[in-house]
Amino acid sequence: MKYTIFLLAVLLSVSISAQTDAENIKKIYDASLSNGKSYEWLDYLSNGIGGRLSGSENAERAVQYTKAEMGKLGFDKVWLQPVMVPKWVRGNPEEAHIEMSNGKAIKVNICALGGSVATPDSGVTAEVIEVQGIDELEALGEAKLKGKIVFFNRPLDPTLINTFSAYGGAVDQRGGGARAASKYGAVGAIVRSMNLRLDDFPHTGGTRYGDQPVNERIPTAAISTNDAELLSKTLKTDTKVKFFFKQNPKQYDDVLSHNVIGEITGSEFPNEYIVVGGHLDSWDLGDGSHDDGAGCVQSMDVLRLLKLSGIKPKRTIRVVMFMNEENGLRGGTEYARVAKEKNENHIFALESDSGGFTPRGFIFDSNEERFNKVLQWKSLFEPYLIHFFGQGGSGADIGPLKSDSIVLAGLRPDSQRYFEYHHTSIDTFDAINKRELELGAATMTSLIYLVDKYGF
Amino acid sequence: MKYTIFLLAVLLSVSISAQTDAENIKKIYDASLSNGKSYEWLDYLSNGIGGRLSGSENAERAVQYTKAEMGKLGFDKVWLQPVMVPKWVRGNPEEAHIEMSNGKAIKVNICALGGSVATPDSGVTAEVIEVQGIDELEALGEAKLKGKIVFFNRPLDPTLINTFSAYGGAVDQRGGGARAASKYGAVGAIVRSMNLRLDDFPHTGGTRYGDQPVNERIPTAAISTNDAELLSKTLKTDTKVKFFFKQNPKQYDDVLSHNVIGEITGSEFPNEYIVVGGHLDSWDLGDGSHDDGAGCVQSMDVLRLLKLSGIKPKRTIRVVMFMNEENGLRGGTEYARVAKEKNENHIFALESDSGGFTPRGFIFDSNEERFNKVLQWKSLFEPYLIHFFGQGGSGADIGPLKSDSIVLAGLRPDSQRYFEYHHTSIDTFDAINKRELELGAATMTSLIYLVDKYGF
Repeated sequence: MKYTIFLLAVLLSVSISAQTDAENIKKIYDASLSNGKSYEWLDYLSNGIGGRLSGSENAERAVQYTKAEMGKLGFDKVWLQPVMVPKWVRGNPEEAHIEMSNGKAIKVNICALGGSVATPDSGVTAEVIEVQGIDELEALGEAKLKGKIVFFNRPLDPTLINTFSAYGGAVDQRGGGARAASKYGAVGAIVRSMNLRLDDFPHTGGTRYGDQPVNERIPTAAISTNDAELLSKTLKTDTKVKFFFKQNPKQYDDVLSHNVIGEITGSEFPNEYIVVGGHLDSWDLGDGSHDDGAGCVQSMDVLRLLKLSGIKPKRTIRVVMFMNEENGLRGGTEYARVAKEKNENHIFALESDSGGFTPRGFIFDSNEERFNKVLQWKSLFEPYLIHFFGQGGSGADIGPLKSDSIVLAGLRPDSQRYFEYHHTSIDTFDAINKRELELGAATMTSLIYLVDKYGF
Repeated sequence: MKYTIFLLAVLLSVSISAQTDAENIKKIYDASLSNGKSYEWLDYLSNGIGGRLSGSENAERAVQYTKAEMGKLGFDKVWLQPVMVPKWVRGNPEEAHIEMSNGKAIKVNICALGGSVATPDSGVTAEVIEVQGIDELEALGEAKLKGKIVFFNRPLDPTLINTFSAYGGAVDQRGGGARAASKYGAVGAIVRSMNLRLDDFPHTGGTRYGDQPVNERIPTAAISTNDAELLSKTLKTDTKVKFFFKQNPKQYDDVLSHNVIGEITGSEFPNEYIVVGGHLDSWDLGDGSHDDGAGCVQSMDVLRLLKLSGIKPKRTIRVVMFMNEENGLRGGTEYARVAKEKNENHIFALESDSGGFTPRGFIFDSNEERFNKVLQWKSLFEPYLIHFFGQGGSGADIGPLKSDSIVLAGLRPDSQRYFEYHHTSIDTFDAINKRELELGAATMTSLIYLVDKYGF
C-alpha cells in the first residue's frame, strides 16, 4: 500500500512536471509570437548595418551593436572576447563573359570565391574544360588542363530532401576546386553556384588554398546557375569557346575582432554552462539576414523570452555571437580554447545557423544516453509542429567545444529555400518572415529551458 | 509449425509490401523533384493567364488551358463539367482616405470585399466607430451606429501556430460584418485585412449579404493592416475623424463555366473513385499562385508522377479543377451532385488549397476505423519530413462529397507565410518556391498511391 502510494506520488509528480513544462513552453512561444524582439534586432543588423564580413567595418559595428543591445537585457555580464580574424576584401565588381569562337561575347554573372586571389589586371582569358568534379582532373591531366579554365559544374542533387545534404555533396568543388586544378596547370577555376534553383545570382563562399604558396594559387569564382547552364550548353556546340573573368580581391593581415558574450549566472548550478548562439559575421554580398543574422537575434532573445515566461535559469547561460564562421572559424575556436583553459564545465551548446525559416526540429551530437534523455522531451514540441529530433550534427561554431561530456545541438529549420539565399546578394531582410524567425527563437528557448531545468 | 510458417509468410509479405511502398514513394518524390511539371504549369497559369475570378475571361482561359494540358497526360477521358457561376467585377480601383477633423486627409489602402455593392459615385464619407467584432454591435445599437462607418479591427491571434486557426478566429468580420452593421443603420463597413503581418496590402475575400434585399446592402472593403493600425490610432486622438471610400464593383447575372475533369479508369476496381484536386478560380487582385493555382498544378501532376514511378492505378482516379471555390462553391457542389446522381462510389478525395509551401502533412475527415488505417501509412512519409496526420478537416471543394463511406483529406503545407499572400495583389508566381511546390505534389501523389493500392 505504501509502495502504491509512493508510486502514485511519483507518477503524479512526473505528470505535474510535464504539465508545467507544457505550460512554460506555451508561455515561451506566446511571448515570442506576440512580443518577440528578434525581428526588430535583425532589421537593424541587416538594414542598419548590412553585410558583416570578418575584419570589415560593418563586422565591428555589429559587435558594438549586439554588445549594446545585450547590455539592456539583464545579463549579469556582457563582454567582448578578443579574436584575430582574417581580412579579405572583394574589391571591384567582378567581370566575366563567354567568348564564342565567332567573336561574340555573352556577359555572365560571377563573384569571386572568398579567399580567392586576384586575376591579373587585364583578367584571365582561356579555353574552358568542363568537369563534374575534382576526381575527373587526374585522368585529364596536364595535357588537357594546362592553360585552361576548369569549369566545375556538378549540380546539387535535387532529390535529397535535406538541402544541406545536397550542398554537402557539391561544395567540395568550391572549397577545393581551384587548388586541385592548379596542380595541373589550370589558370582559373569557375564553379557552379551552390544553388538548387536556376537563377542569376552567383553564390560566394570560402575556397581553400591551404598551405599552397601564394604564387601558385589561381583565381576562382562562382558562376550563377543560369549562366553555368549556358556555359555548359555553349561548350557542347562550340568547343573553342573561351571564358574571360576579372576580379581583384585582396587578402590583408589578420585584424582584431571579437566574439560578443552575454552571461547570466545560474541560481543552483552556476558552474554548469549552457551556450546558445549564432555567428555575427556574414559574407559581403547580401546583408546576411539568413546566414546568420537570424541565428544571432534568435539567440539574443532566449534570455528575454525566459524572463517574460517567468523562468529563472538554474544553470549559467551564455549567449554567444561568434565571429568569423564563414572564413576561418576563429571565434568558435577561441571560445572553446578559453573555456578549456578556464576549465568551464559546458554541458550543452545550441547553434542556429541554418536560416530563419520555420523550425522543424534539432540535430544532436551526443552520446546515446543523453540523446535518449532529449528524446523524452520531443512530445513537448509537437504542438508547435516540431517533429524532427535527429542525430549526427550541430553547428560549426560550437563544434570546437565537442567533448565526451557535452551535448551539442543545431536548430533545424525548413531547408527548402535556404540555398536560394545562402552567400548571395539576395540574402537580405525581405527574405525573412517574422513569424518563422520568432518560432525559431521560441523553439530554441524551449530547449534551453528544458536543458537548464533537467541538466544532463 | 504450420501456423508458425504461415505467420512468418504473412509477416514477410507485410514487410515486403512496406518495402515496396517505401521504394515506390521514393520514386514518386524523386520524379517530382527532378522531373516535375507543376512549376511550369503554374508559371503559365499565373504569368500567362493571371487572376481567375469566376465568370471572368481569365477563368475561361484557365479552363481551356488545363483541359488541353490534361489532354496530353494519358487520361482515358478529359471533360468539362458545366456549372453556372456568379460574376462579380471589381470595377475601378478603390479610393479611400482618413479625414482628420483639422481637414487633413491621409490616403489609405483598401479593396472592395468580394460581392460588395458599390458606394454612390461620390463615395461614402462618415464618422467611424471601431469595434473588435460583430458581437459589440448590439450594445452600441442604432443610437451609436446609424450613419456611421463601422471599422472591424479585431486582429488575427499571433499565438496560434496554425495560421488557419487565426484566420478562422477573425474572418467572421469579413464575411458577416457589413450585413450585421447595416441592421443598425451603418452606411459602410471597413474590415482589417486577414493578415498576421503589418503591411500595405489589402486582402479581399467574400462578404455575405445572404437574402438581404439589395437596397439594404451597404458597401464593405478591407483595409491593409498598416492602415488599420493608423486608423485605430487616429481614432484614439481624434474622435471626429471621418473615413471616405469609393468603389464601384458590380454583380452580374450568373454565367456558364466549368469544372475540368481528367479520369483514368482503375484496372481492378473501376467503380471505386478517388478524387484529387484544387480550385481553378482565384481572386482578382493577384494571379492566384498560392490560392489555388498551386493545388491545381500539384493535382495535375499526380497521374504523371505515378506513371513515371511505374505505378498503374487499380482504382479510378479523377483529377478535378474545381470552379468557383472563392465566391460560391458552385463547382464543388455540382461535382458532388452529379456524382450522387450517377451513384458513383467515391472512396477518397484529397484537396490542396492551403498554398504551395513545404508540405507538413494532411488533415482527414473520416471515421475512426479508416483514420486508423491511414495512420499506418504515416511512417512511410517520415523520410520526407511529413509528420502531421490530423483529424477534423479537408478542403472546401470536396466537402460536398462528404458521406459515411468516403474519406476526405486536405494537404497541410507550412502555414506561416500563407496569410501574407492570401487574396492579395502579391499572391503571385514569384512567391512560389519550386521545390516546395514539387514536394507537395509528391506528398499528394504518395497518399493517392497508398489509397489506390489498399483502398478503404
